[in-house]
Amino acid sequence: MLKGYTTPRTPRGISSLAPTPPWHYVSTSLAVEFTADPQKAAGFLPEPLEPSGDGRCAVYFAEWQFATDDGEEYLDPVRSQYKETIFLIAAKYQGEPVAYCPFIFVDQDVSLMRGLIQGWPKQFGTVWMTRAAALPSKAAPLEAAGGKFGATLSVRDRRVVEARVTLDHVTDQRPAPTFARGVNIRYFPELAAGRHDQPAVHELVQLKSRDVQFSTIWTGSATLRILEHPHLEIGDLAPISVGAGFRFSFAFTVDDVVSLKDLRRQVAQMT
Amino acid sequence: MLKGYTTPRTPRGISSLAPTPPWHYVSTSLAVEFTADPQKAAGFLPEPLEPSGDGRCAVYFAEWQFATDDGEEYLDPVRSQYKETIFLIAAKYQGEPVAYCPFIFVDQDVSLMRGLIQGWPKQFGTVWMTRAAALPSKAAPLEAAGGKFGATLSVRDRRVVEARVTLDHVTDQRPAPTFARGVNIRYFPELAAGRHDQPAVHELVQLKSRDVQFSTIWTGSATLRILEHPHLEIGDLAPISVGAGFRFSFAFTVDDVVSLKDLRRQVAQMT
Amino acid sequence: MLKGYTTPRTPRGISSLAPTPPWHYVSTSLAVEFTADPQKAAGFLPEPLEPSGDGRCAVYFAEWQFATDDGEEYLDPVRSQYKETIFLIAAKYQGEPVAYCPFIFVDQDVSLMRGLIQGWPKQFGTVWMTRAAALPSKAAPLEAAGGKFGATLSVRDRRVVEARVTLDHVTDQRPAPTFARGVNIRYFPELAAGRHDQPAVHELVQLKSRDVQFSTIWTGSATLRILEHPHLEIGDLAPISVGAGFRFSFAFTVDDVVSLKDLRRQVAQMT
Amino acid sequence: MLKGYTTPRTPRGISSLAPTPPWHYVSTSLAVEFTADPQKAAGFLPEPLEPSGDGRCAVYFAEWQFATDDGEEYLDPVRSQYKETIFLIAAKYQGEPVAYCPFIFVDQDVSLMRGLIQGWPKQFGTVWMTRAAALPSKAAPLEAAGGKFGATLSVRDRRVVEARVTLDHVTDQRPAPTFARGVNIRYFPELAAGRHDQPAVHELVQLKSRDVQFSTIWTGSATLRILEHPHLEIGDLAPISVGAGFRFSFAFTVDDVVSLKDLRRQVAQMT
Repeated sequence: MLKGYTTPRTPRGISSLAPTPPWHYVSTSLAVEFTADPQKAAGFLPEPLEPSGDGRCAVYFAEWQFATDDGEEYLDPVRSQYKETIFLIAAKYQGEPVAYCPFIFVDQDVSLMRGLIQGWPKQFGTVWMTRAAALPSKAAPLEAAGGKFGATLSVRDRRVVEARVTLDHVTDQRPAPTFARGVNIRYFPELAAGRHDQPAVHELVQLKSRDVQFSTIWTGSATLRILEHPHLEIGDLAPISVGAGFRFSFAFTVDDVVSLKDLRRQVAQMT
Repeated sequence: MLKGYTTPRTPRGISSLAPTPPWHYVSTSLAVEFTADPQKAAGFLPEPLEPSGDGRCAVYFAEWQFATDDGEEYLDPVRSQYKETIFLIAAKYQGEPVAYCPFIFVDQDVSLMRGLIQGWPKQFGTVWMTRAAALPSKAAPLEAAGGKFGATLSVRDRRVVEARVTLDHVTDQRPAPTFARGVNIRYFPELAAGRHDQPAVHELVQLKSRDVQFSTIWTGSATLRILEHPHLEIGDLAPISVGAGFRFSFAFTVDDVVSLKDLRRQVAQMT
Repeated sequence: MLKGYTTPRTPRGISSLAPTPPWHYVSTSLAVEFTADPQKAAGFLPEPLEPSGDGRCAVYFAEWQFATDDGEEYLDPVRSQYKETIFLIAAKYQGEPVAYCPFIFVDQDVSLMRGLIQGWPKQFGTVWMTRAAALPSKAAPLEAAGGKFGATLSVRDRRVVEARVTLDHVTDQRPAPTFARGVNIRYFPELAAGRHDQPAVHELVQLKSRDVQFSTIWTGSATLRILEHPHLEIGDLAPISVGAGFRFSFAFTVDDVVSLKDLRRQVAQMT
Repeated sequence: MLKGYTTPRTPRGISSLAPTPPWHYVSTSLAVEFTADPQKAAGFLPEPLEPSGDGRCAVYFAEWQFATDDGEEYLDPVRSQYKETIFLIAAKYQGEPVAYCPFIFVDQDVSLMRGLIQGWPKQFGTVWMTRAAALPSKAAPLEAAGGKFGATLSVRDRRVVEARVTLDHVTDQRPAPTFARGVNIRYFPELAAGRHDQPAVHELVQLKSRDVQFSTIWTGSATLRILEHPHLEIGDLAPISVGAGFRFSFAFTVDDVVSLKDLRRQVAQMT
């Protein structure tokens, strides 16, 4: 009997790329709110989501550590750490505000696999984030008013996002749109001839996380550049205006997702 | 209407991690036939496969280039090239010989995604292969009798496979077990609470490739080490005896797979 | 007139791999004190250093950020961040205690170049370190009593060092041997025929740093494994006993080094 | 007695980043001839070189394998393989044509160290090159008329060079400027306070290689883009016109270099 939450499934079940949930996460994050062209942003939304109408988006950068209940994966950190860039677009589902992720980039296969299962459309990217220091130094900002933080994303050898945030004050406000109302598309295609556009899995899901904790949240001014990439439509989300920046940590646990709608009856059209 | 064969699905459909098939491939490959402990090898086989009884396996290393029909991805090779290590175990399905892949490692996300769709249990690994030179040099072997080639696999910072092949003569024989009779498990889990062990997709499939071409095949003697890894059961496939080594190129096209058996204990029902 | 502190030297001088000092640094560090075989440890010391006699060593892991006076390199962190593993052996120079570095591994070229100039024998390695979280989570330790931290080094695809530290209490003690008394060998060989063993630069230097600051220092128990590597003599420093572990940040500035002795008259013997 | 051609120098001498010469090399190379703004190209030349006056340059991409006399490093290819992008500018030294390298990028530390010793101003870059296949496939060109090859360079997350060559016919002509008349600047700075601009080594050298072999050389049409990079002056070499492209292998051995001129304004005096 083979065991394992994902492939490879093996006799002892310790080889699976993604281990059995729950998955515990903690991050240091930098986020920037911005507005994209509302029509272009709306174009990224899958049915049955409806546009917010105002093009509101956010980009999050995060340095993550992950572990299972008893795994202590963080003690062999190549198994646990990864960096990520996440785009969220404000949308509506059945009249309620939600957030949809058109693009997300990580740098570890384990994270990619966990993401696909939750409907995150993950692919590989190279993410860098300024770290705060506990000591005053020209080599690092302090997590304090005036502290300047940068974050960048590169995909397949090309720089595509450059963000900067200057901390100003502590806030109770979290960046928006927010993960708390995230909806994703779980999608796994067929390869059998004639069925390339009839995915085995095509499902609108509501993300669920539990035991969510936020650290102190710093906010301040931000700049954001989103650059064209020949094989990504990310330039279509280039900012028309840039809002506030944020820096914070958050932690949570994932072992569930809520199915909202099976989308398999509507046959996808592919290029 | 969003487009794309895989996520991310986007307005123009050019951002999908894996493009719409057909997928054309060409490789330079090194392979070593070996025998593992028959009982341990049998333990890796999913139902309804049956063991060959003799522990026959092969490990393949390959440097690949990939393209779509009109994509010419190989002209921006970060999109096209990847390296891979593949293990195959000889098995039987309904009395016929087949080959099953317990472990496979690649170094690009695009390849990982295409693999998951075909049922390859891909994860990330670092693969190195000796290259032949067209010129006599102490820096490289010639593809000729006496030419010595090495290949290695490392996974999450640890060396796990070391192979060497010394070419002796040209052969008509391909290494065995072979991809030609490969069967995989397509598998995509559920994350909804209570259904972690009821995958949305769990299917035995027969790999299909077309337009298969082989170059001249060189064979010779080989050595092979498979090392223990704390988070992979790959050491259970350590060689009891090592057979012949092979070096060759092969090319083929994939745009189909044949479903052999739905292995879901109960078919997931989603609304 | 070409400009630049190192190659490449260019018209505007902005392309040099290492910029003109001062170099400001800040790190998060994990350190483990240990004892190696005293005779083997002594074998790594260059003349005119003398052994401490007791085989005392330390290994440091660090996540660094670096900047120049006005560069704010940390805002484009691919230019600024790197990870490092450093070995120090206790020794004596003219009867005074010093620390000598036999091996050091980094993951960025800029750091490698700055290191060579200071006499650090840098090469590439892959370093991972557990991060502390500001929030209680199974995914990370707190920087507090009981917090468990791991660090690892891999070199050319092979794991070579695994360290773990469990924090117990705050201390005023810094790990020893310490950078404060570091001596290095600056070394740049000749390639001209017949002079491969007559280096252009071969000099014992005393490291200098200024504006040194330490954060709170946590200490506790530690474990340490140093594994054999076929192309490194690092296994000769395998611990006979393991002492305390430490976690702390430190920051400093480098723009000087003190020449202690020109070693060029003593012709090196090479393998 | 410590041994080793470079640091780290150790008891057995097997740990040095760069081993003792001779160094044997073999490559597959793609090259493009082009003309840069003559005045800007001249600005990259160190004294006492003189400009060619016509802005002639070439960019070479290469996949290398390297070995020492008895090392067979290519059998553990992580020790042997690397990829490289090299720029050469046509110049004159004492009235004779030479070639000077303003920028060179590699992806392995061993290659970086060997390069610094020869005066190559190496730093890290990510290089990709199309591979030819032995079999006709949409996934690769043949090394034959009409075969299309691409090569790219990215530095610190940003794409900076994109080249394409379409093979047309075999030629006896090698691309120019050529390595055969390469001159480099060996340069190793001082860090002692007040002497940052008085390098310990600053020397014009003539590259020497022996046992040089070329494969069949294919030539054809080419395109070339050189993009701006915020921390490299490489955009100043953007092509005004693009000449022929080339594809070939070459092999050679290095264990010597010829000192042409000591460029130190005052020879460093160390005790």
